[in-house]
Amino acid sequence: MAARPRLHYPNGRGRMESVRWLLAAAGVEFDEEFLETREQLEKLQDGDHLLFQQVPMVEIDGMKLVQTRSILHYIAEKHQLFGRDLKERTLIDMYTEGTLDLLEPIIMHPFLKPEYQPKEVLHMAQKAIVRYFPVFEKVLKGHGQNFLVGNQLSLADVILLQTILALEEKIPNVLASFPFLQEYSVKLCNIPTIKRFLEPGSKKKPPPDDVYLRTVYNVFMP
Amino acid sequence: MAARPRLHYPNGRGRMESVRWLLAAAGVEFDEEFLETREQLEKLQDGDHLLFQQVPMVEIDGMKLVQTRSILHYIAEKHQLFGRDLKERTLIDMYTEGTLDLLEPIIMHPFLKPEYQPKEVLHMAQKAIVRYFPVFEKVLKGHGQNFLVGNQLSLADVILLQTILALEEKIPNVLASFPFLQEYSVKLCNIPTIKRFLEPGSKKKPPPDDVYLRTVYNVFMP
Repeated sequence: MAARPRLHYPNGRGRMESVRWLLAAAGVEFDEEFLETREQLEKLQDGDHLLFQQVPMVEIDGMKLVQTRSILHYIAEKHQLFGRDLKERTLIDMYTEGTLDLLEPIIMHPFLKPEYQPKEVLHMAQKAIVRYFPVFEKVLKGHGQNFLVGNQLSLADVILLQTILALEEKIPNVLASFPFLQEYSVKLCNIPTIKRFLEPGSKKKPPPDDVYLRTVYNVFMP
Repeated sequence: MAARPRLHYPNGRGRMESVRWLLAAAGVEFDEEFLETREQLEKLQDGDHLLFQQVPMVEIDGMKLVQTRSILHYIAEKHQLFGRDLKERTLIDMYTEGTLDLLEPIIMHPFLKPEYQPKEVLHMAQKAIVRYFPVFEKVLKGHGQNFLVGNQLSLADVILLQTILALEEKIPNVLASFPFLQEYSVKLCNIPTIKRFLEPGSKKKPPPDDVYLRTVYNVFMP
C-alpha cells in the first residue's frame, strides 16, 4: 500500500488549502508537517526537498511535488477528477484557472494593511458577482446537472466550492443572485467526503488569524 | 482539415507570446486578430466570446479557449508536448509552472514606472540565477539529454527557452554560469520549427515598445 501523502506548509490555509480540499474530496487520507519557523523551511531547502525552494510541497507516490497547480493536476488526474477526454479536461482546466484567479486575492487578503482590507472585500465581491459567478450559473442552468463538467465531480467543482465558501465567510450573501450556484454548493457540501471535510475535527483550516499571520511572517519573511 | 487557430490579443507579447511560441514549436500555422481598441474588446465580451471577459483567447478546434495556462495545456496535449505518462506530465507541469513564475515579472516589467524598472531587472536576474536556472542546469547535467523531460521536446522546454531569450534581451550574460543551459538553448534554437520562429518575418513579437504600451492601455484600461 502506498504511503499517505505528506503535506508541508504552515498550519493555515494559504496556497495549500486547495490541495487539502482536493485530497479530502477524493477521499484520500493525508498527513501534515507544519512549518513553524524559518529554520524548518531552510532545512527543507538545504536538503533539496523543494524544487524551487518554495512550499506548498507534497510528498506523494515517491515524488516531492511543488507548485500548487501542478500538485492539484496530479491529484485530479490520479483520482479521475479531471474529465474523461481532452475536451472535458480543457473545460475543467479553464474553470479551475478562472476560479483560482478569484481565489488568489482571498488568499492574499489577510496580508494587506488593515486599512485596505474592507475595500478589497468589496472588490472581490464585485469580481465574483460580475465576472465569475455568472459564468458558472449559466453553465449549471444550461445543462441542469449537479457538476460543472461531465455530470461528475471534478477539480473545477472542488476549487469553486472552496472559493464560494471562503467568500461567504466575508460576504454572506454573495450567492444571493445565483440560485443555481446556491443549490449546487448545497449539493456539493453533502457529498460524503466533502461533508466530512466540513465537519469539526477535519484537516480543513479555519480562516486566517493572527497566529497564522505571525507564523507566515516568521517562516517566509527574511 | 481543421481551421487554423485564431489568436485574439493586442499586437505584442504579453500573455499571448507563450501561446505563439508553443504553436510555432509544434509546427502549427495560426492567424491573429489584433485588438487595438477598447471597442474591439467589448465586442468580444458582449458577443459572449470570452468566458471570463479576458484575453488571451484562442479559437481552436471549435472552442474558444481562454486562460493562458489552459490554452498551453490544450495545445501541448494535442501535439504530444506534455510527456508520455503522468510522471513525465507532472515534471513538465512543475517545470513550466516554475518558469511561468519567472516569466510573469518579465511580462509586467514594461508597465512599471520607469524609475522602478532598473531595480526590477536586477531582481529578475537574481531570481533566475539563484532560484530557477540552477534547477534546470542540474536536470540537464544529470541526464545529459537535450530536453528537460523524456528526451523529447515538451511544453517545459518551449516556455523555458522563451523565458531565457526574453531575459537575455535585458541581461545578455544571464546564462554565464550555466554551461548546460547555454548548450541546451542553442540546440533548441536550431530545431527547425523554432528556428523559423526566430527568423525575421515570423509571428514572434518584438520587445514591448511605446506603441504596444499605448495599445494595452487603450484596450484594457477603463
